[in-house]
Amino acid sequence: MSACEFESLEKTLESHLPEPELTEVKRILFGKETKKLDLPPSAVEAASERDFELKGYRFEATQEQLRPARKIRVGLIQHHVVLPTDAPIIDQINGMHNRIGEMVEVAAMCGVNIVCFQETWTMPFAFCTREKEPWTEFAESAEEGNTTRFCQELAKKYNMVVVSPILEREELHNTLWNTAVVISNSGNVLGKSRKNHIPRIGDFNESTYYMEGDTGHTVFQTQFGKIAVNICYGRHHPLNWFMYSMNGAEIIFNPSATVGALSEPMWPIEARNAAIANHCFTCAINRVGTEKQFKTALLSFAAHHDFGHFYGSSYVAAPDGSRTPGLSRTRDGLLVVEMDLNLNRQLSDKWSFKMTGRYAEYAEELTKAVRHDFKPNIVKE
Amino acid sequence: MSACEFESLEKTLESHLPEPELTEVKRILFGKETKKLDLPPSAVEAASERDFELKGYRFEATQEQLRPARKIRVGLIQHHVVLPTDAPIIDQINGMHNRIGEMVEVAAMCGVNIVCFQETWTMPFAFCTREKEPWTEFAESAEEGNTTRFCQELAKKYNMVVVSPILEREELHNTLWNTAVVISNSGNVLGKSRKNHIPRIGDFNESTYYMEGDTGHTVFQTQFGKIAVNICYGRHHPLNWFMYSMNGAEIIFNPSATVGALSEPMWPIEARNAAIANHCFTCAINRVGTEKQFKTALLSFAAHHDFGHFYGSSYVAAPDGSRTPGLSRTRDGLLVVEMDLNLNRQLSDKWSFKMTGRYAEYAEELTKAVRHDFKPNIVKE
Repeated sequence: MSACEFESLEKTLESHLPEPELTEVKRILFGKETKKLDLPPSAVEAASERDFELKGYRFEATQEQLRPARKIRVGLIQHHVVLPTDAPIIDQINGMHNRIGEMVEVAAMCGVNIVCFQETWTMPFAFCTREKEPWTEFAESAEEGNTTRFCQELAKKYNMVVVSPILEREELHNTLWNTAVVISNSGNVLGKSRKNHIPRIGDFNESTYYMEGDTGHTVFQTQFGKIAVNICYGRHHPLNWFMYSMNGAEIIFNPSATVGALSEPMWPIEARNAAIANHCFTCAINRVGTEKQFKTALLSFAAHHDFGHFYGSSYVAAPDGSRTPGLSRTRDGLLVVEMDLNLNRQLSDKWSFKMTGRYAEYAEELTKAVRHDFKPNIVKE
Repeated sequence: MSACEFESLEKTLESHLPEPELTEVKRILFGKETKKLDLPPSAVEAASERDFELKGYRFEATQEQLRPARKIRVGLIQHHVVLPTDAPIIDQINGMHNRIGEMVEVAAMCGVNIVCFQETWTMPFAFCTREKEPWTEFAESAEEGNTTRFCQELAKKYNMVVVSPILEREELHNTLWNTAVVISNSGNVLGKSRKNHIPRIGDFNESTYYMEGDTGHTVFQTQFGKIAVNICYGRHHPLNWFMYSMNGAEIIFNPSATVGALSEPMWPIEARNAAIANHCFTCAINRVGTEKQFKTALLSFAAHHDFGHFYGSSYVAAPDGSRTPGLSRTRDGLLVVEMDLNLNRQLSDKWSFKMTGRYAEYAEELTKAVRHDFKPNIVKE
């Protein structure tokens, strides 16, 4: 069995572990059980016809006396590239629009209020090639590009907030950015959030194409809650999650593109740790499949023509440390998750990390630590 | 099966999962396989006679050209309280000294260079009671108390750095602290590190007894590497781990006392996330057993006379995201882990989180965020 073929951790545990051990294992690995969400049969049928996985779960919160429940549904979409990477660019983009269109239609049937796609979803993850052409041609205006217009139509049609991570071209200066465009359910572009931390690892030296983002830690107040977008490599940086939370984020999306033996065991850890530490929900989305068709030999140690297997496994983590099972490691999928956003404050009232965090002291310490004359606090004998 | 009886996640997986699924599950859950460490038969025999679990693992690093390997061994000790909580205090402390003495002797046989005990290891975790007497009598001077003298003897005898987390009484002002005393292998007290974040949760309102620590993020330069101690609840605070790392820590110990359904699924996440995010080793140590004998009814919602099951499960996580299996959930145990500290820089050179971290910008943002006139960065339609 190759790592590309192994379908799902959760399925394997459920197939082989007897009770009562299975219950204990799931409790320790995944926290409080996440209940299945009943989805309409028409949606289940449509997903099956369109050949993608559809899963639904719900996180519950205690009913409070003074606040009504704040139940909303998010949709996470992971998918393969549709056409070979050497197909005409316009065909590749249109193919991806069509695929996402039919998946979002099912999300709408499932009552999704906020949908988020994977990192740079309109294109192959071509940054491994280090070639500028033709890949930079996939870049579009965040405000006025075809993909944003396409998402605005989806948003209006389905009354859905759409988080659309693309390769952005800012036309005024011809600068490229790795950017999530946030579109309100009214169809208006609410704003954009640029990737704050750029990897320089093996095939992933994306700084060939774009620099660290300049949009800080913007939070978007939507009709369905306050959301933020921590793109891909930013998930390795606890301060990045933290600062979105300090600005009020209730749900932080992490659209990603990640492969490999070092990355995969970190995947279930980082977004979930951020949900725990920041009393919020986090949504980790990874693309899926092997993008094989690159003509250039890639530059990591052994020359190769694909980028490794994107292992999917998108999931949602809750502030109580529980999480949904992951989507498949191998198939396109839509994960629909109902969450009562009241859970965030309930956990905060219980654990109080924001009150016990001593942030004023960290602000001082960090301010000293970044100075060139910083003297680390090291005691020697 | 009750949660107190379930012995080990890892054992359950190994008993029931067939190959090749087991290999894939372990890879995703635990990262790169941690090899078993051969321990001397005399140590294995002694552990068996003394009725505690003894496990050994090793993390490897690449052999570099210019730096020799920096292989050292750490020992993590988890244990039950030895006597009932209403036994004479001096007997309880002496009982614990004897137990630790016989476990550290085995650690020495296994070549351990740095040993760390669990939080407030000389006493039951009595802070749940809210009663000051007799529990505050367990407090001792960090510099001159009997427990420190006992640990100094161990340190000299076995040429071992000893991290001894105790309830500290600072006699000058009669203040209590939750403190780890760090004793050099020379036998000298190198210094102390006080618990930075104090929980106020259910039975865990420890602020009845002691306040937030005032020792900052001290790192101790020992003969075997630079170490720091993040006590218990500080593991929920990513900034706490981070600041120890910013001061140069290569290994961060997390001596803890934790129970319960909400805590246990977070346990494998938080220290491991810290190892990944900070390119260092982390050592999570939890006490084990149910401390049943409290006479006071405890104050959480349902009155009860025990504090819940301390689930042990001590483990070590590496900067590459891999981790050792946990010690048992039910038994006393010694976990011996060999690590090549060169792995930290190797991972840092590969992933470069410290270089891509943009800390100067976070220092500015955090400084603004803690001001009363902070305006969160929220975009509305």
